[in-house]
Amino acid sequence: MNIGIRINITTLLHIVEALGILSFACSGFIEARRKDMDIVGVFTVAFITAFGGGTLRDLLLDRRPLFWVEHHEYTLMVFIVALVATPILPHLRSGLSEKIIIIADTVGLGVFSVAGTSLAVDAGMPVFVCVMMGVITGIFGGVLRDVICNEIPLVFRRGHLYATCSFAGCWTFLVLDWLPVSQAVAVGSSVFVTCALRYLSVRFDLKLPG
Amino acid sequence: MNIGIRINITTLLHIVEALGILSFACSGFIEARRKDMDIVGVFTVAFITAFGGGTLRDLLLDRRPLFWVEHHEYTLMVFIVALVATPILPHLRSGLSEKIIIIADTVGLGVFSVAGTSLAVDAGMPVFVCVMMGVITGIFGGVLRDVICNEIPLVFRRGHLYATCSFAGCWTFLVLDWLPVSQAVAVGSSVFVTCALRYLSVRFDLKLPG
Amino acid sequence: MNIGIRINITTLLHIVEALGILSFACSGFIEARRKDMDIVGVFTVAFITAFGGGTLRDLLLDRRPLFWVEHHEYTLMVFIVALVATPILPHLRSGLSEKIIIIADTVGLGVFSVAGTSLAVDAGMPVFVCVMMGVITGIFGGVLRDVICNEIPLVFRRGHLYATCSFAGCWTFLVLDWLPVSQAVAVGSSVFVTCALRYLSVRFDLKLPG
Repeated sequence: MNIGIRINITTLLHIVEALGILSFACSGFIEARRKDMDIVGVFTVAFITAFGGGTLRDLLLDRRPLFWVEHHEYTLMVFIVALVATPILPHLRSGLSEKIIIIADTVGLGVFSVAGTSLAVDAGMPVFVCVMMGVITGIFGGVLRDVICNEIPLVFRRGHLYATCSFAGCWTFLVLDWLPVSQAVAVGSSVFVTCALRYLSVRFDLKLPG
Repeated sequence: MNIGIRINITTLLHIVEALGILSFACSGFIEARRKDMDIVGVFTVAFITAFGGGTLRDLLLDRRPLFWVEHHEYTLMVFIVALVATPILPHLRSGLSEKIIIIADTVGLGVFSVAGTSLAVDAGMPVFVCVMMGVITGIFGGVLRDVICNEIPLVFRRGHLYATCSFAGCWTFLVLDWLPVSQAVAVGSSVFVTCALRYLSVRFDLKLPG
Repeated sequence: MNIGIRINITTLLHIVEALGILSFACSGFIEARRKDMDIVGVFTVAFITAFGGGTLRDLLLDRRPLFWVEHHEYTLMVFIVALVATPILPHLRSGLSEKIIIIADTVGLGVFSVAGTSLAVDAGMPVFVCVMMGVITGIFGGVLRDVICNEIPLVFRRGHLYATCSFAGCWTFLVLDWLPVSQAVAVGSSVFVTCALRYLSVRFDLKLPG
């Protein structure tokens, strides 16, 4: 009779994925506002940040329909959030929006990395390629955001660990997925490792050498 | 006996499409000249501006052969136009070339938007995705042009309506395509709506809020 | 009994391809170092420079698995080289690293151009598209490197011949491939023409008009 308390892994993944998409959309949103774009630009940059990494992964793995075509409620969600957030965001203090962007981005990074790795495993890719697909899914939304906003991508500039966290999270998933533990544990641990490493890096100012 | 005056819709679409490609190629051409590129750069930027939006759409919809491989006479056309235009364009007054770029770009936007929407409808995409494919086909040639020329894409900067016109044109096509009117009318109305809205925006200085 | 001295064309092509990948990776590497990126950025830019052109070609031709998924030892090779080169490269005099970058880039350009053309021929593309796929494979790694490093792509700026050399090399392959000569000769001549033209351009300061 544990059917009521059994956590449905698919539903859980969907909720977490939606959270990741919203997080990335917000970071694109704030960056586009900074560049003084109009509402179309703001929505497009939010969209590209949220769906860019996953779209590139789907193109590379030749997955169709693309994940945002299959779940087109996500695109609608980003659209509505962009409309709602437009009048609110400018009134936040810049320190607060800075903090929100970092937290949202970290959750998105963790979720997208494990999603990319898991899909590449399902597609039968070799291990090293699975990790790369995870990292690509995690970081390329932000890379495309920065390229369109005419900046050197944040993730490549010398700063706190970022892609490295994604890298560690992807390997965590692969190892746990190979061990006899449930998928939910593997996914959860991977997201946790990515987020924890990112938190430690920001908290204790850890950086990679040049 | 109206066979003589019946307009062949496929031929019409081909002519209009060729016009759109040339328009976008010219805008890429002029932008590359401004950045002082050599002839290879000028041709490549013209090519990317003309075919970038459609190529991205074909990649996302997984359509092969790509439209410029299927109609490779278009690529030859852009190549020849780039050769012919090179010695002529520098002698135009900058005000005139500015005007030509705006008109050419508007026609290209209208044509490419409706072409993208229509192909997505044929591919059985959901309505919201059809509109996005139309807008992507319409604006991404210009976005790629600006990214390569190291500018924040014109279409996202606060200025006259642009992607919004494409958006309106795509919806016009979808609504008319659903009503019992001929495809020619649906296509023509869509291009007209896009161009008219763009004209009104430039004429009366209409802009979106930030 | 000439089995011992017969040159195995497939093995030869693999060696030359690996050389091209390493060359491009080095050029990405040096550019990323100049932009003061951390090790993740350096590796990613090296990777994109080495595999970007071929990946774009594979996406456009719809070839799967991608060439770096099929030969994922290449990605590992780039990864190891990036680790090894990190402590060595900063100690090279900048004049020397400048020279290495130009030579490496030239070899990579020649190899990738002929590889792209040859694959497009195998895919049954029309002649003009084959040449374009060769040029895209040859130059787009560098274009993506420069876009990510927030520069106008080197290849489009007025300078020594570059894409033009690739263009000449692609045509050389197509003509020799059509004549009754062996593939090895066609490939070798194409790489030679690209490299020789590039050398002459740098040596005698040949440039294209604007």
